[in-house]
Amino acid sequence: MYDIIIIGAGTAGLTAAIYARRAGKDVLIYEGETYGGQIMTTPEIENYPGFKKISGYEFATNLYEQAIALGAKFEYDQVTSISGSLETGFTVTSEFAENQAKAIILATGAKNRHLDLPNEEKLTGRGISYCATCDGAFFKGKTVAVNGGGNTAFEDALYLSNLCEKVYLIHRREGFRAEQALIDKAKATANIEFLTNRTISSINGVSELESVTLASTIGESTAELIIDGLFVAIGQTPSSSFLNGFVELDVSGYIVAGEDCKTSVPGVFAAGDGRTKTLRQLTTAASDGAISSVNACACL
Amino acid sequence: MYDIIIIGAGTAGLTAAIYARRAGKDVLIYEGETYGGQIMTTPEIENYPGFKKISGYEFATNLYEQAIALGAKFEYDQVTSISGSLETGFTVTSEFAENQAKAIILATGAKNRHLDLPNEEKLTGRGISYCATCDGAFFKGKTVAVNGGGNTAFEDALYLSNLCEKVYLIHRREGFRAEQALIDKAKATANIEFLTNRTISSINGVSELESVTLASTIGESTAELIIDGLFVAIGQTPSSSFLNGFVELDVSGYIVAGEDCKTSVPGVFAAGDGRTKTLRQLTTAASDGAISSVNACACL
Repeated sequence: MYDIIIIGAGTAGLTAAIYARRAGKDVLIYEGETYGGQIMTTPEIENYPGFKKISGYEFATNLYEQAIALGAKFEYDQVTSISGSLETGFTVTSEFAENQAKAIILATGAKNRHLDLPNEEKLTGRGISYCATCDGAFFKGKTVAVNGGGNTAFEDALYLSNLCEKVYLIHRREGFRAEQALIDKAKATANIEFLTNRTISSINGVSELESVTLASTIGESTAELIIDGLFVAIGQTPSSSFLNGFVELDVSGYIVAGEDCKTSVPGVFAAGDGRTKTLRQLTTAASDGAISSVNACACL
Repeated sequence: MYDIIIIGAGTAGLTAAIYARRAGKDVLIYEGETYGGQIMTTPEIENYPGFKKISGYEFATNLYEQAIALGAKFEYDQVTSISGSLETGFTVTSEFAENQAKAIILATGAKNRHLDLPNEEKLTGRGISYCATCDGAFFKGKTVAVNGGGNTAFEDALYLSNLCEKVYLIHRREGFRAEQALIDKAKATANIEFLTNRTISSINGVSELESVTLASTIGESTAELIIDGLFVAIGQTPSSSFLNGFVELDVSGYIVAGEDCKTSVPGVFAAGDGRTKTLRQLTTAASDGAISSVNACACL
């Protein structure tokens, strides 16, 4: 029986492991893919305090080695279900193993929704981004487009309008899901131009993004839009489907928990991008890792 | 008129500056002492994700240089008052200057209460600590004492009992302010020994802590207690007295704000150790810096 099992070896999960090990607890971390989480593929991080510039791979590897050096154990296996309670202990079942722990930290993260177009993966970090707060500063004085019609797309467009020469907002319909106040603010911003009733039909560029092709959703016309950056803001999907029925999830699948990271189940904590919160950043993931771990240790 | 004025150049304030500058905002940071805040005097940080080991000075200097490189401006001056509103703009008055901003981030921090004994400052980081979560792991298998009778003292004693051979809890009275559940848990822990009705009358050691002298508060007796570590847990004082009447403070003087860092005054945000929260760590300060900054930018 471990003291704490952590599901997910991204920034939140690894930080939780660092705190728990320093508190003298036995820790097992499950990871279904590779350590590091979403940040692994980010070429350049500039907004994590302590590093002027660091690659996502180097950052994640630092964290991973920090957790290993402190004695955290890893199980590279996809968790399929969790059961139990604080009173009886929890059982974590994965494809090839079954382990018990007194407390659980869910650091399962979320994945950005992709356009699923050719070139998209190749040009990610080379003009294509899924996070304006993270990468906007790399496009100072440039021309960019945001794709989406929800709050995040409008927040991104407004954020980028302060940095970029020109911001296009591409949306497949005429109307938007975003709050009216955000829409009004964007419409009143001189360098934001709306391109509605259009979808991106192709992403163009060899070694970096050069343009996107827009296809009308109400007619037959297509047009090429030359841009330096494309911010895809069509939503995120939390990796939480296996938790359905075990802890409370919100309508989008995020694990319901406040700043204290406590979920609906005593002894189970949620940390990082998979938790209900508004700002998903390395700093907030690390903070959740620390808080969830200290609170998990206190309930043992 | 600046976009954002940040009060305090510790981890929270510097992180807020990094985020605001990357969002293209004009930023002025006020600091009454030196940049870096409380962490500056910490010899070794092991629990900040990304660095296996770094000194507080080096960590703070990294952050400072990161903020400077992004174009944050500094004013080394003690702020005496803030007035105004989101509608009219805010005026920040300090000893030698007066500046205006559209939004304010209060990253004013808190200071650990000291015993005010000879040797205390000299041996801080050489056996004396004010944070068990931060420094407990340096005392694995050793004998330590915690001084205090509130929740923090008991949480520290329980935390340390997992790591240390022996934990003494020194308190000046027979009764404790801590919650009964924590007291019961500590009393049931074999390696925690209570030394009540005693105060520390002297701290002994040349280059590192060797012992403390305990004086009875109900008699005349004194005794020497040989320990490797002393955790002083007699409270913190937020540096917020100049904010009284401007934003809501709690009974202890912490600035009332939730995870979104929004204070009682629209356009004014609280970040870091000075905010009402339960875990005060580098990670949570950095997270507050990011959240307060993104929310401040959104209200401009």
